[in-house]
Amino acid sequence: MPHIELNSSEPGIRGLLRYRPETAAPLSDLAEVLLRGPSTLTPGERELIAAYVSELNSCDYCSRSHGACAAALLPGGMGVVEQVRADAGTAPVSTKLKALLAIAAAVRHSGRNVTAELVAGARTAGATDLEIHDTVLIAALFCMFNRYVDGLATVAPDDPDSYAAGAQRLVLDGYTINPS
Amino acid sequence: MPHIELNSSEPGIRGLLRYRPETAAPLSDLAEVLLRGPSTLTPGERELIAAYVSELNSCDYCSRSHGACAAALLPGGMGVVEQVRADAGTAPVSTKLKALLAIAAAVRHSGRNVTAELVAGARTAGATDLEIHDTVLIAALFCMFNRYVDGLATVAPDDPDSYAAGAQRLVLDGYTINPS
Repeated sequence: MPHIELNSSEPGIRGLLRYRPETAAPLSDLAEVLLRGPSTLTPGERELIAAYVSELNSCDYCSRSHGACAAALLPGGMGVVEQVRADAGTAPVSTKLKALLAIAAAVRHSGRNVTAELVAGARTAGATDLEIHDTVLIAALFCMFNRYVDGLATVAPDDPDSYAAGAQRLVLDGYTINPS
Repeated sequence: MPHIELNSSEPGIRGLLRYRPETAAPLSDLAEVLLRGPSTLTPGERELIAAYVSELNSCDYCSRSHGACAAALLPGGMGVVEQVRADAGTAPVSTKLKALLAIAAAVRHSGRNVTAELVAGARTAGATDLEIHDTVLIAALFCMFNRYVDGLATVAPDDPDSYAAGAQRLVLDGYTINPS
């Protein structure tokens, strides 16, 4: 049961976005720019970074939601998501994405854990400055979302189908809130 | 030296906002709503939560920037900021703000550290659901900003005057970016 009385029974961040529309708008815009906006990283790669950080932060709702998005967007489907969760270092993703996932894992602990060596490794694997920037910010963004969702004890559904259905909506419509 | 080549010599988050205007807009809007928007918490109280979380995260730039803002906005000035940094439990702030700072410190570790007891304590001290919500989101927001600023190894000036000058601008103009 959530720590505060929400104005809907929607799970996870969805109930929080409905509760506080003033913060929902910039939060949604930020997710849209970083996860769906123009980028040389695919939306699937960016959702995988989001799912990975959320899994490391033990945020069940975000890990399953963004894992389902990554699975829907990546050629490898849920198999590659599960392999990254189990061991990102040996998962069947590009060397560049492995290096960016290592940066994301460092950010998860603290920004100060991102070493010059991790950044040099990503650059050697072909990552651009903007890809490194966006990886750091996506990882930091999910350190925020995970704390927001769990800090207010929102509900995470058990049913895997609800995450797959949510992912379908996010893949089709993106994150921007459409006034209704 | 920052991990990536920025397009200005501005320190801390200012250089990052200039580097990536697409993410700067929603990041700035989010800070404006949470730290300056309508609220029963004063801007000074909200800046104190931001400074406290940044200090716990050892983010020098954010701790000093938002400490200077809190000092400029709170009747107790820098004295109360320093006392909260040293020991929030005994600092000369209201019982309600002490309880909210305790929630913020829990969020800093993990959203799952926010217990029903911490929330009940805040409510007993007079905190509303919206104040509890905003405290969790402000703490989570600075877990993002701290990681963003330090994860890209931005520069934090040594000179205390530069933080006081930055605070004056933020107190007068707020966080929203004005297109120029």
